[in-house]
Amino acid sequence: MSFLIDLQERSRLVDEALDKYLPSSEAYPQLIHEAMRYSIFAGGKRLRPVLALAAAEAVGGSAERAMPVACALELIHTYSLVHDDLPAMDNDDFRRGRPTSHKVYGEAMAILVGDALLTLAFELTAKAGETVAPELANRVTLEIARASGSCGLIGGQVVDTLSENKSIDGKVLEYIHRHKTGALFKAAVRSGAIISNASHEQLEALTVYASQMGLAFQIKDDLLDIEGDETIIGKPVGSDIKNQKSTYPSVYGLEKAREMAFSAAAEANEALKIFGSKGEFLRSIMHFIIHRDH
Amino acid sequence: MSFLIDLQERSRLVDEALDKYLPSSEAYPQLIHEAMRYSIFAGGKRLRPVLALAAAEAVGGSAERAMPVACALELIHTYSLVHDDLPAMDNDDFRRGRPTSHKVYGEAMAILVGDALLTLAFELTAKAGETVAPELANRVTLEIARASGSCGLIGGQVVDTLSENKSIDGKVLEYIHRHKTGALFKAAVRSGAIISNASHEQLEALTVYASQMGLAFQIKDDLLDIEGDETIIGKPVGSDIKNQKSTYPSVYGLEKAREMAFSAAAEANEALKIFGSKGEFLRSIMHFIIHRDH
Repeated sequence: MSFLIDLQERSRLVDEALDKYLPSSEAYPQLIHEAMRYSIFAGGKRLRPVLALAAAEAVGGSAERAMPVACALELIHTYSLVHDDLPAMDNDDFRRGRPTSHKVYGEAMAILVGDALLTLAFELTAKAGETVAPELANRVTLEIARASGSCGLIGGQVVDTLSENKSIDGKVLEYIHRHKTGALFKAAVRSGAIISNASHEQLEALTVYASQMGLAFQIKDDLLDIEGDETIIGKPVGSDIKNQKSTYPSVYGLEKAREMAFSAAAEANEALKIFGSKGEFLRSIMHFIIHRDH
Repeated sequence: MSFLIDLQERSRLVDEALDKYLPSSEAYPQLIHEAMRYSIFAGGKRLRPVLALAAAEAVGGSAERAMPVACALELIHTYSLVHDDLPAMDNDDFRRGRPTSHKVYGEAMAILVGDALLTLAFELTAKAGETVAPELANRVTLEIARASGSCGLIGGQVVDTLSENKSIDGKVLEYIHRHKTGALFKAAVRSGAIISNASHEQLEALTVYASQMGLAFQIKDDLLDIEGDETIIGKPVGSDIKNQKSTYPSVYGLEKAREMAFSAAAEANEALKIFGSKGEFLRSIMHFIIHRDH
């Protein structure tokens, strides 16, 4: 229970920081700033920034100094959702129960909102260099740009788009998830550590953690779409099956998928051993992800 | 004449570098890399990268070390064109006589291509830190992110979109151009200088140059749409009038607009005085811009 309170408190701090970093909705041109804020403050779990902050603390760094980097990751996550929802992509009218950006502000504005959030992310990673060694900020920019680019997040999105209504094998499925979701999780954990001047050994351990955690997260997502409670998840269950989307349960079967998720979580926790009690929060996040009901 | 040969040679070097920095079209997922290359190698003038290289040389720096930054600016310029051309934005089927990205690869891919080019730009600014002090690379990331964001290039795009089919005054017109075109020109010149460790005085002078040059460029663009030769420009003249677009000639009249362009060019050249002969190439670029026929 204290973990949930802790998580809430951290996500509140992230919200505060995002509010500070985003241009005010009074800033000209107001419409885009209002629209950027509409998508950012739409009730996300702030999982990526919280992971970055937790990684910073695990390696003995300060959450405060990691905050611009943590927020950059949320901006990138949000931009990718805004563009994903566009009519030419997934054509989703609602997200988390609210009309999507292009439904409220129109398609042109939603494209620009995504572009602006992505751009602001790199303004923040560069700005992080004002309170830590610029070399570390520069490494984080590189880390996040690579993770988000055409061989990372966007690559996953491309393959996902090309695989629509096609039956895909386990290899392609893994590519999609390792890139579309996994790459940014990994960048979150690694960036929080890099900006805190983590050692090589610490960074390697966190990379294993992030990689396994991302996999567990995705499998759990697929499982919730089958086993979840619609009123808790906030979207219809069974939509993957309806959309003939390949998922871990559809490729491996329900039982094997569950096993894979737990095994990934165990490996993630194993990697945290070197951090002792400082890895506690990251361990709790893993536990939370694998047992969440939405 | 030797300036044009020089310009061609530099733009060739930029093309070579872009070819090196862009993922190969064999890299998975191939389609997006092919599409990124389609838009990048579409016969642009490479004005922004050439400006960055020229600014680097003006302050005594090396064009070679400024190359990643120069290419980052071309990536951002190209991404903004790809997204601008989308059906939800300007809905252009052709650019420079070739079908636009979404006409060839579809809308979803064109959105992702733009996103990927923008993201790669920041990978390059960060990478610049491998051959110069990371602090300088970090400052360039900040400079380019600000110039391209919702209070820069994207801001100009937003106001332009909102002003369509509306009569606007000189103030709004200036905002659009100073942001939609001017901001990236300024960032190009300043980034080339920053990455070369320019002094404060040098940077100030180049900022004035870039600002006036950007203004002259835009007015000239508007003038060409009225006075230009369709077969040389490669697009129909008079399209601004047809689209009821506000331009410098439509707001100020033809004669006054011409005067404004020449006066901006003169101020740009004035600012270059402190560089002596090292400012020669920047001076030639200004001359080229104001006298170009396309």
